[in-house]
Amino acid sequence: MLEALKEEVLAANLKLEEHNLVTFTWGNVSGIDRESGRIVIKPSGVDYSELTADKLVVLNEDGEILEGSLKPSSDTPTHLYLYKAFPAIGGIVHTHSRWATSWAQSGRDIPALGTTHADYFESAIPCTREMYEEEIVKDYEYHTGKVIAETFQNESYEQNPGVLVHSHGPFCWGTDALNALHNAVVLETVAEMAYHSLMLNKQLSPIDRVLHDKHFYRKHGANAYYGQT
Amino acid sequence: MLEALKEEVLAANLKLEEHNLVTFTWGNVSGIDRESGRIVIKPSGVDYSELTADKLVVLNEDGEILEGSLKPSSDTPTHLYLYKAFPAIGGIVHTHSRWATSWAQSGRDIPALGTTHADYFESAIPCTREMYEEEIVKDYEYHTGKVIAETFQNESYEQNPGVLVHSHGPFCWGTDALNALHNAVVLETVAEMAYHSLMLNKQLSPIDRVLHDKHFYRKHGANAYYGQT
Amino acid sequence: MLEALKEEVLAANLKLEEHNLVTFTWGNVSGIDRESGRIVIKPSGVDYSELTADKLVVLNEDGEILEGSLKPSSDTPTHLYLYKAFPAIGGIVHTHSRWATSWAQSGRDIPALGTTHADYFESAIPCTREMYEEEIVKDYEYHTGKVIAETFQNESYEQNPGVLVHSHGPFCWGTDALNALHNAVVLETVAEMAYHSLMLNKQLSPIDRVLHDKHFYRKHGANAYYGQT
Amino acid sequence: MLEALKEEVLAANLKLEEHNLVTFTWGNVSGIDRESGRIVIKPSGVDYSELTADKLVVLNEDGEILEGSLKPSSDTPTHLYLYKAFPAIGGIVHTHSRWATSWAQSGRDIPALGTTHADYFESAIPCTREMYEEEIVKDYEYHTGKVIAETFQNESYEQNPGVLVHSHGPFCWGTDALNALHNAVVLETVAEMAYHSLMLNKQLSPIDRVLHDKHFYRKHGANAYYGQT
Repeated sequence: MLEALKEEVLAANLKLEEHNLVTFTWGNVSGIDRESGRIVIKPSGVDYSELTADKLVVLNEDGEILEGSLKPSSDTPTHLYLYKAFPAIGGIVHTHSRWATSWAQSGRDIPALGTTHADYFESAIPCTREMYEEEIVKDYEYHTGKVIAETFQNESYEQNPGVLVHSHGPFCWGTDALNALHNAVVLETVAEMAYHSLMLNKQLSPIDRVLHDKHFYRKHGANAYYGQT
Repeated sequence: MLEALKEEVLAANLKLEEHNLVTFTWGNVSGIDRESGRIVIKPSGVDYSELTADKLVVLNEDGEILEGSLKPSSDTPTHLYLYKAFPAIGGIVHTHSRWATSWAQSGRDIPALGTTHADYFESAIPCTREMYEEEIVKDYEYHTGKVIAETFQNESYEQNPGVLVHSHGPFCWGTDALNALHNAVVLETVAEMAYHSLMLNKQLSPIDRVLHDKHFYRKHGANAYYGQT
Repeated sequence: MLEALKEEVLAANLKLEEHNLVTFTWGNVSGIDRESGRIVIKPSGVDYSELTADKLVVLNEDGEILEGSLKPSSDTPTHLYLYKAFPAIGGIVHTHSRWATSWAQSGRDIPALGTTHADYFESAIPCTREMYEEEIVKDYEYHTGKVIAETFQNESYEQNPGVLVHSHGPFCWGTDALNALHNAVVLETVAEMAYHSLMLNKQLSPIDRVLHDKHFYRKHGANAYYGQT
Repeated sequence: MLEALKEEVLAANLKLEEHNLVTFTWGNVSGIDRESGRIVIKPSGVDYSELTADKLVVLNEDGEILEGSLKPSSDTPTHLYLYKAFPAIGGIVHTHSRWATSWAQSGRDIPALGTTHADYFESAIPCTREMYEEEIVKDYEYHTGKVIAETFQNESYEQNPGVLVHSHGPFCWGTDALNALHNAVVLETVAEMAYHSLMLNKQLSPIDRVLHDKHFYRKHGANAYYGQT
């Protein structure tokens, strides 16, 4: 079932280590087949070195296991929520990558301080509000998805493919699992550079809107001219 | 004697380098066989590249050498003290890993600033008090163990598997040597991220108790639901 | 056409990854044959792992493609501008390397804080002014070259082989593509060390002119005595 | 001539890269045969990947070349000065390693903030005074050695095997070339950790003398008990 999707989700999971985004099993990638509504996700707590396509879990949109003998990632309800809330996405990556998590722990949005940020994110990378006690105690992972979606009420999730969950870490998404992984690498790099820029200049303001748009639309939309297509 | 334990202690010692926790020989791992009370520990000052199972030293709980032709780690009396004070542990790791040691040198506890911390440590990671002159001059390594145990009088060593020895560096423990090594990697990562979060927000408070408990008990105790078991 | 130059430009592009100066495709190197005025440059958005000499693009000084089936780097107009403005250079490197970009985003020149800087740069490494709206909206990459050249009106581009483009990242140049790559590595290293020195001492002043000149002219000009020639 | 010494000096030079202490050719190691007074040193500006024992240069104590067709390191007069001023040393290492150089550029001594420092250095790691104009203009490298030796008038160079040259970078020494290399790695690590400790606690004081001595004499002198001898 969904062999091509499984291969892609497996590849994206393995790239987490290659790009130095994970320690131990602290990360997971999923992908969705929008036609059937089926989701392929990493099993919980399995080492990347032991991960194979047949260990991945296939779920329907309600989280019922359709295939696989292992438990899916404990973050599965967050992934399910986001696939419903963000209908244009095809893949999700969650990690505790070090620079993005440092920002998430600080409770600060990552301001757009340069063109690297602007090439991929149309706004600041937002940090969610803190979760309420009742959201944490019951259905915590579901509410994590809800608070992420709430953060994007006033801006486009399609033009801002990542978020910092307050006190926790980053979630990224994309058109498919590998694109979501790509965005997770970008977020980590942008987080690292923004940290150092702010230390050099505590009063630093975000870049001008004109420059931000120039870079964002150089890579996105009808008038994009970066790359070969 | 204790061949399986030796293989595990060897593996954990070699993983110190793999996880970039040590420079030269600045680290050691031990494990205990609780039935016989025998301890297996790294010899003092031996390079990891030359370490083999038969070079490990076997001691009884009083530190008498039962097997091995090399001197045990100079930190052996600290290990012995901790095995007596903390009866539920099976392995101990000491390193001068860079981020944890930077915190130990600063004399500060590592506050629980995020869920990565909460997944493994039930409280802040404490820094011991400074040692008194008489504790340093005589039986220094024994007193190092004593000051660690003293730090855990008011909290559980089982739910907080690591400590910063003031002006020195981290000791971690676990159910066995490999679990202690795992906790040492976690502590180093948590130390790195807490540093950067604090630099981004000097007034940062620890996360709420409800969120902390949610994450800790997602991975520990009767209601844990992370992983495959 | 220009096979030797292509091989050098290819080698310099591949060294970007080796020296950890790039994430994904965020960098490009070009070289010029001054006799014919022809330029060899990386194609846009192509992975380094897939880059071969025959994928490089050959242009004339007006940017017309003479050879190659792929689109040249989107930064090509910047390269073209610099080859005209700086007649003594033979190669150009652009990256979003992390330390140099952190400085570029902060809007600060990198002051000459030590002899490593002085060995390669005769002055502070300047950060350009911010670009005007009209420069960004139309012919952005051309104006990026223009604002770089403007920055060097009062100092020698030959003795200062690099610049920080405000809110963007570094451009470096040299006598050929590999020399430009060399200077990009130097700039990244100098940026990293200057950051940490300033954090240790916020009031730090640049080194004395006498020491700066001693190091610069130990490696440059008629009285140089470093190396074998 | 001096084949065993050449092999050791070669090995120590190659370890500079292995321990990530050098960028390009920014480092050099020498060793001395105290019986003959002959010194073996790296040639100037030669890549480590191309370095072989027969490319090393043999000099007498006055710097006259006894063997070798290449020019010796431009820092040779500093090495010669130190071999005369510090009669107990057998090897010298100079690098621009990043953390130690960041401190040198800041003009600050590295205070003894922990036991890692105390295991190897009996005091703070001093930063030299700035050099005078006349010392820079003429016989600069000779005066670099002189200002280092001056720094050690009031403390023992044998118990403090390294220094930060103001605005420049570290020099380390030891009983032989490999021991000097070992000390250079220690200095770099200590510099990195001291930086982060100070950022966490700007008012941090050096560790108590009793703790410092305990660690230093655990590894040095008649009562040392670390390691196998």
